[in-house]
Amino acid sequence: MPHAIKKASKKAGLSPGTLVYIGEKRTAKIKIDILGYDESDFVESTLASVSDCMPFIDQESVTWINLSGIHDVAMIETLGQQFNLHPLLLEDVVNTGQRPKMDDYEDYLFIVLKMLYLGQKHHEIEHEQMSLVLLGSRVVISFQEKEGDVFEAVRARIRKGKGRIRTKGADYLAYALIDSIVDNYFKIFEEIGEQIEELQEEVISNPRPETLQAIQGLKREMIFLRKSVWPLREVVSALVRGESELVTEDVRIFLRDVYDHTIQVVDTIETFRDMLAGMLDIYLSSLSNKMNEVMKVLTIIATIFIPMTFVAGVYGMNFKFMPELEWHWSYPLFWAVLIAIFISMLVWFKRKKWL
Amino acid sequence: MPHAIKKASKKAGLSPGTLVYIGEKRTAKIKIDILGYDESDFVESTLASVSDCMPFIDQESVTWINLSGIHDVAMIETLGQQFNLHPLLLEDVVNTGQRPKMDDYEDYLFIVLKMLYLGQKHHEIEHEQMSLVLLGSRVVISFQEKEGDVFEAVRARIRKGKGRIRTKGADYLAYALIDSIVDNYFKIFEEIGEQIEELQEEVISNPRPETLQAIQGLKREMIFLRKSVWPLREVVSALVRGESELVTEDVRIFLRDVYDHTIQVVDTIETFRDMLAGMLDIYLSSLSNKMNEVMKVLTIIATIFIPMTFVAGVYGMNFKFMPELEWHWSYPLFWAVLIAIFISMLVWFKRKKWL
Amino acid sequence: MPHAIKKASKKAGLSPGTLVYIGEKRTAKIKIDILGYDESDFVESTLASVSDCMPFIDQESVTWINLSGIHDVAMIETLGQQFNLHPLLLEDVVNTGQRPKMDDYEDYLFIVLKMLYLGQKHHEIEHEQMSLVLLGSRVVISFQEKEGDVFEAVRARIRKGKGRIRTKGADYLAYALIDSIVDNYFKIFEEIGEQIEELQEEVISNPRPETLQAIQGLKREMIFLRKSVWPLREVVSALVRGESELVTEDVRIFLRDVYDHTIQVVDTIETFRDMLAGMLDIYLSSLSNKMNEVMKVLTIIATIFIPMTFVAGVYGMNFKFMPELEWHWSYPLFWAVLIAIFISMLVWFKRKKWL
Amino acid sequence: MPHAIKKASKKAGLSPGTLVYIGEKRTAKIKIDILGYDESDFVESTLASVSDCMPFIDQESVTWINLSGIHDVAMIETLGQQFNLHPLLLEDVVNTGQRPKMDDYEDYLFIVLKMLYLGQKHHEIEHEQMSLVLLGSRVVISFQEKEGDVFEAVRARIRKGKGRIRTKGADYLAYALIDSIVDNYFKIFEEIGEQIEELQEEVISNPRPETLQAIQGLKREMIFLRKSVWPLREVVSALVRGESELVTEDVRIFLRDVYDHTIQVVDTIETFRDMLAGMLDIYLSSLSNKMNEVMKVLTIIATIFIPMTFVAGVYGMNFKFMPELEWHWSYPLFWAVLIAIFISMLVWFKRKKWL
Amino acid sequence: MPHAIKKASKKAGLSPGTLVYIGEKRTAKIKIDILGYDESDFVESTLASVSDCMPFIDQESVTWINLSGIHDVAMIETLGQQFNLHPLLLEDVVNTGQRPKMDDYEDYLFIVLKMLYLGQKHHEIEHEQMSLVLLGSRVVISFQEKEGDVFEAVRARIRKGKGRIRTKGADYLAYALIDSIVDNYFKIFEEIGEQIEELQEEVISNPRPETLQAIQGLKREMIFLRKSVWPLREVVSALVRGESELVTEDVRIFLRDVYDHTIQVVDTIETFRDMLAGMLDIYLSSLSNKMNEVMKVLTIIATIFIPMTFVAGVYGMNFKFMPELEWHWSYPLFWAVLIAIFISMLVWFKRKKWL
Repeated sequence: MPHAIKKASKKAGLSPGTLVYIGEKRTAKIKIDILGYDESDFVESTLASVSDCMPFIDQESVTWINLSGIHDVAMIETLGQQFNLHPLLLEDVVNTGQRPKMDDYEDYLFIVLKMLYLGQKHHEIEHEQMSLVLLGSRVVISFQEKEGDVFEAVRARIRKGKGRIRTKGADYLAYALIDSIVDNYFKIFEEIGEQIEELQEEVISNPRPETLQAIQGLKREMIFLRKSVWPLREVVSALVRGESELVTEDVRIFLRDVYDHTIQVVDTIETFRDMLAGMLDIYLSSLSNKMNEVMKVLTIIATIFIPMTFVAGVYGMNFKFMPELEWHWSYPLFWAVLIAIFISMLVWFKRKKWL
Repeated sequence: MPHAIKKASKKAGLSPGTLVYIGEKRTAKIKIDILGYDESDFVESTLASVSDCMPFIDQESVTWINLSGIHDVAMIETLGQQFNLHPLLLEDVVNTGQRPKMDDYEDYLFIVLKMLYLGQKHHEIEHEQMSLVLLGSRVVISFQEKEGDVFEAVRARIRKGKGRIRTKGADYLAYALIDSIVDNYFKIFEEIGEQIEELQEEVISNPRPETLQAIQGLKREMIFLRKSVWPLREVVSALVRGESELVTEDVRIFLRDVYDHTIQVVDTIETFRDMLAGMLDIYLSSLSNKMNEVMKVLTIIATIFIPMTFVAGVYGMNFKFMPELEWHWSYPLFWAVLIAIFISMLVWFKRKKWL
Repeated sequence: MPHAIKKASKKAGLSPGTLVYIGEKRTAKIKIDILGYDESDFVESTLASVSDCMPFIDQESVTWINLSGIHDVAMIETLGQQFNLHPLLLEDVVNTGQRPKMDDYEDYLFIVLKMLYLGQKHHEIEHEQMSLVLLGSRVVISFQEKEGDVFEAVRARIRKGKGRIRTKGADYLAYALIDSIVDNYFKIFEEIGEQIEELQEEVISNPRPETLQAIQGLKREMIFLRKSVWPLREVVSALVRGESELVTEDVRIFLRDVYDHTIQVVDTIETFRDMLAGMLDIYLSSLSNKMNEVMKVLTIIATIFIPMTFVAGVYGMNFKFMPELEWHWSYPLFWAVLIAIFISMLVWFKRKKWL
Repeated sequence: MPHAIKKASKKAGLSPGTLVYIGEKRTAKIKIDILGYDESDFVESTLASVSDCMPFIDQESVTWINLSGIHDVAMIETLGQQFNLHPLLLEDVVNTGQRPKMDDYEDYLFIVLKMLYLGQKHHEIEHEQMSLVLLGSRVVISFQEKEGDVFEAVRARIRKGKGRIRTKGADYLAYALIDSIVDNYFKIFEEIGEQIEELQEEVISNPRPETLQAIQGLKREMIFLRKSVWPLREVVSALVRGESELVTEDVRIFLRDVYDHTIQVVDTIETFRDMLAGMLDIYLSSLSNKMNEVMKVLTIIATIFIPMTFVAGVYGMNFKFMPELEWHWSYPLFWAVLIAIFISMLVWFKRKKWL
Repeated sequence: MPHAIKKASKKAGLSPGTLVYIGEKRTAKIKIDILGYDESDFVESTLASVSDCMPFIDQESVTWINLSGIHDVAMIETLGQQFNLHPLLLEDVVNTGQRPKMDDYEDYLFIVLKMLYLGQKHHEIEHEQMSLVLLGSRVVISFQEKEGDVFEAVRARIRKGKGRIRTKGADYLAYALIDSIVDNYFKIFEEIGEQIEELQEEVISNPRPETLQAIQGLKREMIFLRKSVWPLREVVSALVRGESELVTEDVRIFLRDVYDHTIQVVDTIETFRDMLAGMLDIYLSSLSNKMNEVMKVLTIIATIFIPMTFVAGVYGMNFKFMPELEWHWSYPLFWAVLIAIFISMLVWFKRKKWL
């Protein structure tokens, strides 16, 4: 968390609209992928520079320009000039600390989302900011922080002409991308759900301080996810309500579906939070239980042996006149009494359910 | 919970409107029950294939088509084509991870609900998704996950012509089905209420770690129920407000009644949650109480015997010059003093309410 | 609580509008009291059957029909037919599991309330459902679960012609009844307030597990009261806003007063909840305090005597060569040292505030 | 709290508009102060009876009638008749259990507030209900429970003609009174703030059960204050929004200022609540800390001396064949070993940070 | 916190509009900085008295008057008269206990903000109230509590003509100032985030009462920040919605950006609060863990040595007839048995995971 803040504080004092890349340091050359398609045809190509985009645009087809990197501020700026995008929009694109939002610039729609997916090395959740510009009815520009995304299935559908994507406009493409991102949240949840289940068993069978830290870690993850998803819900809701004319009635019905999913996502996060809170209660009560157990052992030992030690101490005294000491059966009797006390103690503990 | 998520994540990347059955694996052939009725007459039949439905429809009567299974995606698709239903609607039908909702497609109304009932083997709550399509004023199509439902009473009323159901349209039938589902929630609550009462006694008389886990289990169940019921309230509220023209003014008065029930359901869940939270407090404090008891036993034993053992130790010393050792009444006096200490200790503990 | 649920689950599957009495079993004959009055005159009589009501109605006066029982479903049904009341209304009347609500049937207004009063045997809060039908401007019908209510003062005012009640219409009568019910909530609160005060002293001076259970019991009572009162607030608010034309402007000013009271009631419940939550904190911390005290006793005893026992043990050893044993003043010195240790220990504990 | 409820329950069953004084018993004669002023002049006088007010009213000046007592119901009733006030208004005036509210009777505005100030004997917060009637544009009537108020500064400003008060109407006077009351809340907060600071030090340095009770007492005070202030906010907000025509545009700007203050008051209460909740956490954890300390002392003592006592016990045994007993250096060696153990134990505890 | 209250209570009873400086005592002469600029030119100067401002104003340029101090009430009053500002506005300016707000006086807009920055001596958060008057389209007056602010970057941009600030009106300047303040919040958060991280490590590795106090201290800081930021959000939101005509459409797009930042600020505060709450849980559970550890040491020692001491005690008894005492191998056997017990105990503790 403090990471995002550190990034944001870098910008304090700069003129608004000044492009400053705020995010993890990267040096890789930004990949520009372009994908144009209409009902009958499609072109795909990887461009060397932003200015190469323009020839693709003036066609009847839908064009999707995807940048896999936003750390080259100059390139973003050139792109912005070419498509006549507002400087504040570009500023938001290169600032990875954004929360999900939608800004309506009348001629184009700007959407910021958080893309989550599981890294190669399993168990690790990758966060990436994805900005989307829906430019009129024919062009979508998407900006990612780095290579690797959740859009392969969309690309496949475009290439193979499967489904209705090739017959629809840019708004449908934008919808498809948002839908992919939201659908991938469930994969993340599957992973987290498994971690929670493991922790749940651990917290019951063998609670350790590390368990508590893992619970707290997941709680923090949930806080982060909630921050990503709550505003997303509003974004999709605004799209469904048709606040922008760039999204056609037709596509809005599909977005209603995405909206249902975002609500499921929110619900799931709340459920996870409740489960984690419950686990904390179990953890704390299991600490008390362990203490109880320790104390019982101590009490049992002490309660049995302290009185017996006292008796032994009595007959270790050096009083001149102690008639028991002289009697021949004293010692065997001593043992008999002790063993009787010992057994009745055990019975008593048994009845108290301490043993 | 992670179950529903696992299901949803299966769909990531697919083209929207692609029908994918998401739910428990089933292979049974889907049963199609059809029930047609008007004021004077009724027909009932079980169909082999979806296409056999059509002859029933073009009559003056109300027709209720009920599918007891949604895992045969092809059949659902055929049905959708026959009644001209939107692909996204069908997609929702076969995805059992939906939350309750109402979608208005103008010509027809789509309602998703969660049907809860107690399984044969008592004590087990069965969850099933029930989708409902109110198609114009004459047709209702209902989709269930499997055979077995809570509608027997509705069927009986139709067959016997009891009540006003035979004199009313499809919207009344839809209302009757929703009403049945909501009424059955109370049966579930009765069951849960009894479990809570049992736990409440256990938590006071004999709190064990298992009790805590049972409390947590019920809390999770409540979270799940709340997720099912909150959106239901909105669905019924929307119907009552008359947002769709397919529901007549007349039926809306009855839906107002259902709305009252959903609020009672919500209230009951909140009450249960409060009770479970209270039980957690009792559990934790009873752990402290038990510890207190253990500690008291230890302290009593130690407080009585440690000083006495000290005294015995003193007279076990081997100093040459110890006048008490020589005196004849020393030993009886030793015992007298010890017993006096013992009794006064007991009195003190009694007064402190430790005994 | 599970009681009300048990009742509601009885109805599952029945045709809506079917009258089923849901509540405690009763067999007493239902008493029908009728009270007619205008500015100059009043009649009062107890009727044998519902049909005897009608002659009273067609007068210029206001008529109040009060049924002290709702378990005779047939009688309720007859009454409903006579006054042309909607079947759903009657269903609600005989179902004691309702939450407070107001339904506007245009010709008449239906109001459900919870009447609370202290039973004969002090300390016991009686709950009773009170339904009210305001029929046009001249008739009020009230349904109670059993004999005994909080309306005696209203009756006295009608009989004696005190206040403005005799000069006003049926809406004022309805207001007077609601006002009586709300005013009686404060009597209940007085009782509960005293119980809370007693508990508060107990929790500080002598916290026992029973105290905790009493606190939890009151918390549950609060949950129930809140469920009764929150919707009541909305009911009165709707009446004040003049949503029904049956309530005249004039009476609405009086209802505003009732509304203020319902808000006070809600406030009081929240205050009680806060106080009970605070008592729980005190209870739990007093458990810790008691444990601390027990541990201190143990620690003081052990800390004083264990070292002294060790010293005594040393001089009980049988080493051949132990010069101290031979010295004449060893034993008196031994005691002197022990007593010095003892006193300095006490001083140390005193300074640590353990004594 | 139960006090206010006790009062309210006294009224159950009475006809609405019946004046019943509900509050602390008082017998002092009610003081009636009248203050008339216009830009150039002012009169001040203390009246014997309510009817003496009238001559003052028919002037061009603003008249402020202040009653320092509301327990003489007959006097209030006479006043009400003279100024033609609604019976429900008078009922509210003499009922000290009101929450802050504003009732608009078109010709006049009725405002109920809670006046708080510190009593003579410092540290004690006095609560008093203050009702205000703004009667047209020239008359303000204020009702207090007893003598002593927070309006001296307002009176001084009128007498000296300081500020703009003499040039404005009755609505400005009403504003000035409300402003005085709200400003005095901050004095109360100053007092409470100091108490909280004292408690905060105590809870860290020397937590005792009394500290907990003091915290809980302040929490209850906060609950009460919140109940007084939340509705006040709505009252002032309604005045600012200009819901009544009796308040001129000009004065509304000043009321906006009061509104800002009420929000600060609400904020402060929330802050205090948060701080008190934090102190509870500290209290509870300090109990655990103290227990830890006690346990450490016990454990240190026991861990050092129990093994040493065992060793002494061994050489106190009476076995015939125990070679160590015979050896000359055994006893010095015994002490050397014990001291070595003792020191290494201390080092170990030191390293564990127990000492 | 009590500090701000103390300040506010000073004003009780004063006539509204009376200027009273409420804040820390200061004596430094107030610095008046004036900065005038248009697209081509800029003047900068430090004035001796307020009246020197006027010549700067009647130009075509934008003028920014900045007062670094508000404790000279007379100066503020003169300034108010010169620019014809409302007395209540001036009262708010000199009262440092304001919450952020915006008041629209039609001809000018009054905005109060909280400026936060890190003091010279690192780790210390400085709070300062910043009031802003946007006077028509050409003048901005800003009031600070003392010298030192977060506007250096804005001044630099004006001086160097960087960015678009020189080409825009006073509303853009006001925006730039607000933006600087909000951007600086992130610097504060960076600092706090680091403190939280340090605490998080400490609470796990070495929890001490001081750690708890540090956590509580940060929690209080969060409460204060939230009080500063929540209303700020509303202020910026009102500006974005265009409630005042003094803010042009053009600048509103930039304010939308600030609004996004304020929401990020709010989010961050909530995240910090959640993290601190989680740390409290860890702290409390680590106390239990430490207690568990202490108890284990005690129990292990006691469980091993108490039984062995008992055995030693037995053979220290002085019974005449004790055959073991005579046997030659008794003593070696005694040791053998004890060591066996010792080892098996250790194994048992190992298996219980106590060692």
